[in-house]
Amino acid sequence: MNLRPLHDRLVVERLDIETKTASGIVLPEAAAEKPDQGKVLAIGNGKILEDGKVRPMAVQVGERVLFGKYAGQVVKVDGKELLILREEDIFAIVEGK
Amino acid sequence: MNLRPLHDRLVVERLDIETKTASGIVLPEAAAEKPDQGKVLAIGNGKILEDGKVRPMAVQVGERVLFGKYAGQVVKVDGKELLILREEDIFAIVEGK
Amino acid sequence: MNLRPLHDRLVVERLDIETKTASGIVLPEAAAEKPDQGKVLAIGNGKILEDGKVRPMAVQVGERVLFGKYAGQVVKVDGKELLILREEDIFAIVEGK
Amino acid sequence: MNLRPLHDRLVVERLDIETKTASGIVLPEAAAEKPDQGKVLAIGNGKILEDGKVRPMAVQVGERVLFGKYAGQVVKVDGKELLILREEDIFAIVEGK
Amino acid sequence: MNLRPLHDRLVVERLDIETKTASGIVLPEAAAEKPDQGKVLAIGNGKILEDGKVRPMAVQVGERVLFGKYAGQVVKVDGKELLILREEDIFAIVEGK
Amino acid sequence: MNLRPLHDRLVVERLDIETKTASGIVLPEAAAEKPDQGKVLAIGNGKILEDGKVRPMAVQVGERVLFGKYAGQVVKVDGKELLILREEDIFAIVEGK
Amino acid sequence: MNLRPLHDRLVVERLDIETKTASGIVLPEAAAEKPDQGKVLAIGNGKILEDGKVRPMAVQVGERVLFGKYAGQVVKVDGKELLILREEDIFAIVEGK
Repeated sequence: MNLRPLHDRLVVERLDIETKTASGIVLPEAAAEKPDQGKVLAIGNGKILEDGKVRPMAVQVGERVLFGKYAGQVVKVDGKELLILREEDIFAIVEGK
Repeated sequence: MNLRPLHDRLVVERLDIETKTASGIVLPEAAAEKPDQGKVLAIGNGKILEDGKVRPMAVQVGERVLFGKYAGQVVKVDGKELLILREEDIFAIVEGK
Repeated sequence: MNLRPLHDRLVVERLDIETKTASGIVLPEAAAEKPDQGKVLAIGNGKILEDGKVRPMAVQVGERVLFGKYAGQVVKVDGKELLILREEDIFAIVEGK
Repeated sequence: MNLRPLHDRLVVERLDIETKTASGIVLPEAAAEKPDQGKVLAIGNGKILEDGKVRPMAVQVGERVLFGKYAGQVVKVDGKELLILREEDIFAIVEGK
Repeated sequence: MNLRPLHDRLVVERLDIETKTASGIVLPEAAAEKPDQGKVLAIGNGKILEDGKVRPMAVQVGERVLFGKYAGQVVKVDGKELLILREEDIFAIVEGK
Repeated sequence: MNLRPLHDRLVVERLDIETKTASGIVLPEAAAEKPDQGKVLAIGNGKILEDGKVRPMAVQVGERVLFGKYAGQVVKVDGKELLILREEDIFAIVEGK
Repeated sequence: MNLRPLHDRLVVERLDIETKTASGIVLPEAAAEKPDQGKVLAIGNGKILEDGKVRPMAVQVGERVLFGKYAGQVVKVDGKELLILREEDIFAIVEGK
């Protein structure tokens, strides 16, 4: 199954952020503290402006993005939880490691 | 009876999503978890922009669409429950199987 | 008495939707389930756009329309309950029987 | 005393709607059921559009108008209760008797 | 002290409205019933439109105006209660006596 | 330390308004009654309009201004309480004494 | 890891403001009294205007900025708390020491 988002929407898969303690134990970061990051799986063609022109997306498929904890809406496709966001929900692109 | 939606509205029939367990038993997905998908039965001519021009719909009749669980309004036509959505309620077009 | 709606308003008379049971008994559909349909009695000249131009109505007098259960405002004229809607409250035009 | 409304405002005097029962007794319609109608006493020059132009009023002094039960603001001028409405509060012009 | 309002604001001094009973006794009108009228003490240069142009005020200093009971904000200048309104808070100009 | 406000913002220092009683005793005016006045310490370059142009500020540094009791946000810079306002929060410029 | 903010967003690191008492003891300022200041770590390309043009940011990386106590959203990147703001959340640029 394939999702083709409309306009300025993106399909994002949340990344699980882990924290390595000093002793090397890997702990999933507490939910309340978790920065929301995800990988962009699909993007729309861009936002349609008032004059009908389309503004291409500022985010590309495969990029890692940072967004608000409560942004977007969760959908379940093929048993997998995905997040539907609008471009304006994206705070920043996360680069490097 | 036939519905001709106005402007940027669509008539959508919800799809029942089923989940096949490992043992092959088919279970209707729990309501709280159900991604909202549907089939587009009818579309309007498109959104009327501020300058009076019409932007054609980005969704076609027969396409399968993904939308928010609480989007739109339910109407009952000829005893059948249908969903009235606006184009901006549609998250994505679902392609393939 | 005659009503001449202003701009993008319509005067609509609700239709009572009835349901015929298998045994032929006609039941008025339960209020909670009733799709709101009505007949257009009068329409305005159309919505006035920001630049002052008028966009003619997409709905004509005599057409049967589908709208939200809670849309519009009820008025009583000559002892008859009528519904005042705006064009954007209309979901779709209902054609055929 | 004379009121000169600004822009798209109107001064309206509510009409008391009476209902004649079959036996000829005239009853003031119950408040909860009363359609709000009134006579236009004064109008402004019209709404000022974004570009500074003025759109003349679609309602004239002396016309009978229909409006929402809770529209507008009541003022008391010379001991008389009047209603201040904006043109967009007016549903329709009531013609004939 | 002198107030020079900005843009589309006005400084208004409320008028006390009195009611003369049939027997000639003058009563201050009950607060709950009082139409809000006032005298314009100062006006701004006018509203700045989206394109940066200024629309001159439709109300002049010295005029008597009618406005909503809860409109504007009260300030106290030199021990005197004044009302700061915007032009759009003004319902009508009151002429004559 | 120096504050350079952005766009249509101003930095204002509240003035304490005192009231001299008949007997010459100077009382700070009760908080609930205090008109909010202040001295402008710094201004931005002006509001950026929709088309990207900048509208210069209508208020200058050093002027005394009148504003709503609850307008703006208090910040503390170098131990001094200052008020951050937008130009549209300013009711009027106070001239003379 | 590197953050590249979108459009008119900024990544800001809050500064801890300390207060030196008369006796020279340094106290972290009480939270309720703390003016929110921070250092700009990264900025977007600027706000996209209605006509699709981009307005460059009025704030530069490395500048110290003043903003509302409750502005923006906190994210945690590489174990460090950062604040995501929009340019319009910035009150002023703080210059000098």
